[in-house]
Amino acid sequence: MFFASDNSGPVHPTVLDALTRANDGYAKSYGADDLTVSVTAQIRDLFEAPDAAVYLVATGTAANVLALSVLCQPFETVFCSDRAHIHEDECNAPEFYTGGAKLTLVPGGDRMSPVALRKAIEGEENRGVHGPQRGAVSITNVAELGNVYSLAEMQGLCSVAKEYNLPVHLDGARFSQACAALQCTPAEMSWKLGVDVAVFGGTKNGLMGVEAVVIFDPKRAREFELRRKRGAHLFSKHRYLAAQMQAFLQDDLWRDLANRSNATCSRLFDGLQRLGIDIVTEVPANLLFFRLPRHVHHTLLAQGAVYILMDPETGADDDLVTARLVCDWAQTHENVDAFLKLVEDAL
Amino acid sequence: MFFASDNSGPVHPTVLDALTRANDGYAKSYGADDLTVSVTAQIRDLFEAPDAAVYLVATGTAANVLALSVLCQPFETVFCSDRAHIHEDECNAPEFYTGGAKLTLVPGGDRMSPVALRKAIEGEENRGVHGPQRGAVSITNVAELGNVYSLAEMQGLCSVAKEYNLPVHLDGARFSQACAALQCTPAEMSWKLGVDVAVFGGTKNGLMGVEAVVIFDPKRAREFELRRKRGAHLFSKHRYLAAQMQAFLQDDLWRDLANRSNATCSRLFDGLQRLGIDIVTEVPANLLFFRLPRHVHHTLLAQGAVYILMDPETGADDDLVTARLVCDWAQTHENVDAFLKLVEDAL
Amino acid sequence: MFFASDNSGPVHPTVLDALTRANDGYAKSYGADDLTVSVTAQIRDLFEAPDAAVYLVATGTAANVLALSVLCQPFETVFCSDRAHIHEDECNAPEFYTGGAKLTLVPGGDRMSPVALRKAIEGEENRGVHGPQRGAVSITNVAELGNVYSLAEMQGLCSVAKEYNLPVHLDGARFSQACAALQCTPAEMSWKLGVDVAVFGGTKNGLMGVEAVVIFDPKRAREFELRRKRGAHLFSKHRYLAAQMQAFLQDDLWRDLANRSNATCSRLFDGLQRLGIDIVTEVPANLLFFRLPRHVHHTLLAQGAVYILMDPETGADDDLVTARLVCDWAQTHENVDAFLKLVEDAL
Amino acid sequence: MFFASDNSGPVHPTVLDALTRANDGYAKSYGADDLTVSVTAQIRDLFEAPDAAVYLVATGTAANVLALSVLCQPFETVFCSDRAHIHEDECNAPEFYTGGAKLTLVPGGDRMSPVALRKAIEGEENRGVHGPQRGAVSITNVAELGNVYSLAEMQGLCSVAKEYNLPVHLDGARFSQACAALQCTPAEMSWKLGVDVAVFGGTKNGLMGVEAVVIFDPKRAREFELRRKRGAHLFSKHRYLAAQMQAFLQDDLWRDLANRSNATCSRLFDGLQRLGIDIVTEVPANLLFFRLPRHVHHTLLAQGAVYILMDPETGADDDLVTARLVCDWAQTHENVDAFLKLVEDAL
Repeated sequence: MFFASDNSGPVHPTVLDALTRANDGYAKSYGADDLTVSVTAQIRDLFEAPDAAVYLVATGTAANVLALSVLCQPFETVFCSDRAHIHEDECNAPEFYTGGAKLTLVPGGDRMSPVALRKAIEGEENRGVHGPQRGAVSITNVAELGNVYSLAEMQGLCSVAKEYNLPVHLDGARFSQACAALQCTPAEMSWKLGVDVAVFGGTKNGLMGVEAVVIFDPKRAREFELRRKRGAHLFSKHRYLAAQMQAFLQDDLWRDLANRSNATCSRLFDGLQRLGIDIVTEVPANLLFFRLPRHVHHTLLAQGAVYILMDPETGADDDLVTARLVCDWAQTHENVDAFLKLVEDAL
Repeated sequence: MFFASDNSGPVHPTVLDALTRANDGYAKSYGADDLTVSVTAQIRDLFEAPDAAVYLVATGTAANVLALSVLCQPFETVFCSDRAHIHEDECNAPEFYTGGAKLTLVPGGDRMSPVALRKAIEGEENRGVHGPQRGAVSITNVAELGNVYSLAEMQGLCSVAKEYNLPVHLDGARFSQACAALQCTPAEMSWKLGVDVAVFGGTKNGLMGVEAVVIFDPKRAREFELRRKRGAHLFSKHRYLAAQMQAFLQDDLWRDLANRSNATCSRLFDGLQRLGIDIVTEVPANLLFFRLPRHVHHTLLAQGAVYILMDPETGADDDLVTARLVCDWAQTHENVDAFLKLVEDAL
Repeated sequence: MFFASDNSGPVHPTVLDALTRANDGYAKSYGADDLTVSVTAQIRDLFEAPDAAVYLVATGTAANVLALSVLCQPFETVFCSDRAHIHEDECNAPEFYTGGAKLTLVPGGDRMSPVALRKAIEGEENRGVHGPQRGAVSITNVAELGNVYSLAEMQGLCSVAKEYNLPVHLDGARFSQACAALQCTPAEMSWKLGVDVAVFGGTKNGLMGVEAVVIFDPKRAREFELRRKRGAHLFSKHRYLAAQMQAFLQDDLWRDLANRSNATCSRLFDGLQRLGIDIVTEVPANLLFFRLPRHVHHTLLAQGAVYILMDPETGADDDLVTARLVCDWAQTHENVDAFLKLVEDAL
Repeated sequence: MFFASDNSGPVHPTVLDALTRANDGYAKSYGADDLTVSVTAQIRDLFEAPDAAVYLVATGTAANVLALSVLCQPFETVFCSDRAHIHEDECNAPEFYTGGAKLTLVPGGDRMSPVALRKAIEGEENRGVHGPQRGAVSITNVAELGNVYSLAEMQGLCSVAKEYNLPVHLDGARFSQACAALQCTPAEMSWKLGVDVAVFGGTKNGLMGVEAVVIFDPKRAREFELRRKRGAHLFSKHRYLAAQMQAFLQDDLWRDLANRSNATCSRLFDGLQRLGIDIVTEVPANLLFFRLPRHVHHTLLAQGAVYILMDPETGADDDLVTARLVCDWAQTHENVDAFLKLVEDAL
């Protein structure tokens, strides 16, 4: 009953098969190999973006911060949710890679509203050279608390960004799960809305560690390449990144795995709701936040459920404590049902 | 006949096996998994350094520049060979990760001499706050042009560094091959000489992409962890880095593969010498630099040999042009002999 | 009737005299001149801090960001008011000089409360290496909206900082005015409360452009010197910075000028209050924020009053708009009375 | 007999007068004052560059590194003499302000030759994304060892730069002295040759601390303004920078003072030559490097001559030791003659 993260489960077996297949003879290094060439072409096709520049890196943070580094200047500020991963969970990597740009936090849960975004952008004015300058807008979908922006909601944010002539970054650590939830195409969730650089994440959806950065304006490509190398993120044995992505793309495995995670999480949602549990998120993807009295959490954890409490671990026994459940692609209905049974018994 | 690089060949099959074995069920992320704990303990054992902090990253550049970032300050300068990889081949990554430290280039081929190192260190004096301050000394073994520092030579450099109270970094992208050539232990090639942080490279010796950073003074450990995360080099699915390293350590595979590469290269050396070819390096490891007239190179390359010319590709046909041959672990005696035959025929 | 800023008025005449006196013959450069030596000793005396390291720089931003750069690491976050100058008005200079540290904004007007500070510090926990690490606490006194922290209030903040073992920076652009308002000594407003590095500002109080950075722990001194040089803030003709500071210290000119500014501002406060104007700040120093209908502001500005509207300049005529009045040392009672008369007539 | 530096003498009296004149009433801050507007217009006129953007900063290092920061990217390298001030005497400030760009040192004394420059530029090729990318070319005139590039020599360097499409920075800490030596106009020594950004230094020629940065392509202006603020180099009381520059421009004071320094140095040159002293530089400006046995230097220094030995202070008494003499604007013929007499007596 492991619901702690989507980076803790196994990688999909076809990924290992692809690595084995790729492990044949000599190949050019640093991304000049045939497999990389073919896989990046496939991603361009998938995104219906024939001119896009596509790069593979091994961590989600690298994907995000390299993307930001080509979208904004050190004297600018990036607008993002106050719960954004780039703010809370990347140990100042965005500040590092941008050379010291600021993040302006837009309040309101894990999803920014166009109104709040506009207000934040307007707030960074009237100070001439004294204040940070307006820089990129960064959107995360699936958002950090499990909510999924609708295409209309994303469109609203992109429109505000474009109105101020600001580029848009999409943190797509869970791009697949969002696409699956929205039943849309990658293009519909990215450049068709105005996204300038999208991260198409694989690590949280069955790969060992590969994220594709899709840069829709190829004029930014060369700078990305140089910043990737300078950030020490250019892999010499690049074919093994490409092989993982190849498996991911084959027969839309990415969407299958995302559907699977989302469906398992949905089953969890239905079960908890049936039990009258207080669920914080709307749960259209593979993350679910819910509240239980602390002592119930402790009972569940003691009985083998693995998940993360968001609030401090100490406090009164009866305090309602928020916790996070994540379903990765390998999570099973049996586990979900076993967990629900545990909850039912514990109440 | 692929002699272009040691990052173009296949990974060793036991590495794939280890990945498959590791791909079982759920594991803690970000390096808290059992496999990582066990593998880093093994590396401490291997280095006879029970207090060392050991970290895995996926690229050699990351290993080097993160190591430098905990060894020096932005207002300092790093002393290294003017052929050092950190200077020539990392697109300013050392400058980036150190926050703008300088590299002071010590002339003299790929190996610094203690005399030249001392002169360089002395050169950065008398300027008070105006000049860069003396920072770390960075040694590469195997060096960039294929030479191997003897333990006595390394000791000489470390002694100079210690005399000025400067920390020592060892770029060990080819640590295994150097150890194999010197028939010494990892401890003998590192902390016993005064090395403060050593990179124990795996990528150029049969792994997909893993380097261990061994920090002998654990007081630097926490800063390294934070800088690794901030550099976007902390892997979430860390067990797959650990699994590769596990295979590398198992029955000293690292040394076996290094011996194999070195032996193949030695065969190449003997063969070329027999043919009277001008060999630039002494070749005690797996890199060999040699000179042939340009037109001979072109003949060889046209016939399927793959290797890199160090001098510009255009020029007079009869110019002696330096080229590099690299033997990776998978290189065969058959290939070597076939190549030697080609050379013989071309002369 | 110039109330727009305290950096727009003339410098005090004794400052020019001091420059003229200093302009005699040859002097050592880069701060090794006798005048600098004597002036920094005087500042140590003034702060009753015989071991402190004291440095002069020419801008307030330089003083603040160099101070922060020796107090925190690039992977840390600085806690400050969400109205702090270092956040709003320094165009990412703190992020630049710290190598990419973050600022965590503590809400609540221009003064942080110990409760809000503690909450912010507590908020940056539980994320291990993923979140920014807790760094320095930065306090501004006089605060940005004109309020003055009492010594007890500052003590409260310093205590929280010390509880978490965090260093404290004091942005003292208006140090003199705060000291004058609190009728305390520099020591009482700095190290006696736990401040680690204080900026003793001169530019906003009658000098051309000099701020002293007072570092109470001399172990940080050398790093400051190197970072000052690297930031291009070490003046070669340093005696002209020292001369200004000499005039400032002579017979406590700094306190006289501050008393003068505060008294003029107090007269303004009393007058506006008599007229029933809505005053936002408590006004114990030389800044005053007040509200009037937009059309009244426009009348006043049209009649020659010079000051800054904090809210956007366009909107309904009857909107209450906040504006800032600043009294510098050269401001006169006549001007204040003339301005009050204007307001009275405009109402 | 102070010949140690041109930043140790007094400022010219008209500079103090200008400061006093400027110290009248209220003025807009941050460079929006009338005096700044007028003075920057005068500099545009002086440089015959009606579209140039002109900015004032207070230190030469700030001028240089801010200029470089708008001319090159963090993944590039700046080509400069291996004796360049930006390399030797700015404590990594160029690396800091460019975000980690490298300096590629061009050997050959203090003046680069077009051949050596071309070789250095060519040396940074063939490595794709792995090596630093070719960035700006930085020329210093007067050069660090006192030599003055002729216009033809500068033209040669600029032509090479342009051939590779690289921008050119001119470190003009002693711009006036070079112009005076070459009897040319500022335009002839800058944009007419292909210089993109020139520093017009005042600090080493009679001002307290002002340098003008002249950016010939105004498209770079806004970025410069933001980087200046972010570097903490935007002065609030900007009129006092402008006033100094006003005095400098008035009746070509800059050229008068430069002629004076150069003439005094020339007298020194002639005198030393007459005495048969070994002079290292050709001395067309205000710096002179010469060699004497160590014991003679010690005699001169003991008798009150003040200047800097370039070689270490300890060693055999008879060693020929290089030393530097600098004549600032205030240096007198009497002092020169007295010094020459000392030398004559000491020999």
